[in-house]
Amino acid sequence: MGLSINQWTIKPTPMAEAVAAVKSNGLDAIGLWRQNVAEYGLAETAALVRREGLRVSTLCRGGFLTAADPDARAQALRDNEDAIREAVTLGTQTVVLVVGGLLDGEKDIVATRRRVTENIATIAPFAEAEGVKLAIEPLHPMFAADRAVVSTLDQALDIAEEIGSPNVGAVVDTYHVWWDPNLASAIDRAGRLGKLFSYQVCDWNLPLASEPLHSRGYMGDGYIDFPAITRLVVATGYDDDIESEIFNEAIWAEPPARAVATVKARYDELVAPHL
Amino acid sequence: MGLSINQWTIKPTPMAEAVAAVKSNGLDAIGLWRQNVAEYGLAETAALVRREGLRVSTLCRGGFLTAADPDARAQALRDNEDAIREAVTLGTQTVVLVVGGLLDGEKDIVATRRRVTENIATIAPFAEAEGVKLAIEPLHPMFAADRAVVSTLDQALDIAEEIGSPNVGAVVDTYHVWWDPNLASAIDRAGRLGKLFSYQVCDWNLPLASEPLHSRGYMGDGYIDFPAITRLVVATGYDDDIESEIFNEAIWAEPPARAVATVKARYDELVAPHL
Repeated sequence: MGLSINQWTIKPTPMAEAVAAVKSNGLDAIGLWRQNVAEYGLAETAALVRREGLRVSTLCRGGFLTAADPDARAQALRDNEDAIREAVTLGTQTVVLVVGGLLDGEKDIVATRRRVTENIATIAPFAEAEGVKLAIEPLHPMFAADRAVVSTLDQALDIAEEIGSPNVGAVVDTYHVWWDPNLASAIDRAGRLGKLFSYQVCDWNLPLASEPLHSRGYMGDGYIDFPAITRLVVATGYDDDIESEIFNEAIWAEPPARAVATVKARYDELVAPHL
Repeated sequence: MGLSINQWTIKPTPMAEAVAAVKSNGLDAIGLWRQNVAEYGLAETAALVRREGLRVSTLCRGGFLTAADPDARAQALRDNEDAIREAVTLGTQTVVLVVGGLLDGEKDIVATRRRVTENIATIAPFAEAEGVKLAIEPLHPMFAADRAVVSTLDQALDIAEEIGSPNVGAVVDTYHVWWDPNLASAIDRAGRLGKLFSYQVCDWNLPLASEPLHSRGYMGDGYIDFPAITRLVVATGYDDDIESEIFNEAIWAEPPARAVATVKARYDELVAPHL
């Protein structure tokens, strides 16, 4: 258990330099993105993180499983199977799923959610066979239309329970769920179900960036009560890595080792004392 | 029961012209804002709407009840009592409450919500005595930090149930709640409790405006399934006015009678057939 840096916290940084920025701050875990892994090479990335002694906390991301058209659905399923295989190669247990938003012109969010559940159920046996966990990420409701029709932790757990696979669970990313009036009971429920697969920390900054995806901030810069949420997570027995994934154009303009140092300092101040 | 135009849908329009724009479209209900009422004069506004035969569907707004400091709290309570008195004068039964966000520097959203409940409970007896309903408006979670720590309909109903006054209930504004995976059960619950005090319609547009408050759109321009949500509301027995409150800078640039005509056309297409 420890702080893991998601590589998109230092998004412009090439793979080898990102690994170096993590290592130079005394950290030993990283969260990877498939695009970056593909660019550096899957085997090469696996060899790099092994050589450097890094754990890969999660692989981002699978998902986008809302397709209605049979061909598009088959392609999405294949893509998720690829993500699972890549996770095995990289030595991570966890693939994060961003489930996808409404299709162009579709307004039936209930039907869209139904397809998400069916499609995750379809890939769950493969994930079980490969020993990989599928972590459904509830995204903040402001992304419900275009990115994820799963908006709350309880909803992700409902889907996981319906599917009934031990390899389907959920991510708690503070940015997406901090506002939820049911957060305490949902985190407790995730723990009891054994479905709290990843805990991720970053802050909710205002004003929103013109690209709202990039409004995430260093812990402490925004509105989120990290001690309180961390205590809820720890109370479940969660003892895995805690990943920090921050998309923020100002942070991307910083030298990567300095950005990682700031994440670590904020983690040491706001998260670590509550573990 | 009918379509009511919230006057901030045509925000730049002075009171008398706003009333004329509503009337010229054959509508007979309007939602008013306290600032605009104060500017035109409370007695004058009451006389105007009475002379023109308009119902006032709601008065916006009370709330901002998160203060911790005793003086600020007392002032907020007085302001809400004023809103209740103004509602009586204007002949509307319903004051909409936007409860307020986190105080500067505060990160304890649980404590903030507790103060909201206590403060609404404090004003409830006055609302009962005056025959005015306090409609708690859950705001979209993207406003949880700065505007409303009440983010879901179930949460608003939990607060209303805890307070236990027949005059405390909730608003369903599609913009704020459309994404909620529990929306169907929450609307049903609101109906069973007799606490569905106002149904408001406007669409969720993307991309978000640089001022996210102004991302609201004409029904049909965004992602919301108005037939489905309207059927849920109607199934509760709701038979009050349906207000359309759209904040959108492009709409504010239109001639007001034309904007109202568009709202009416969209209502006739997407809402009215499902009543």
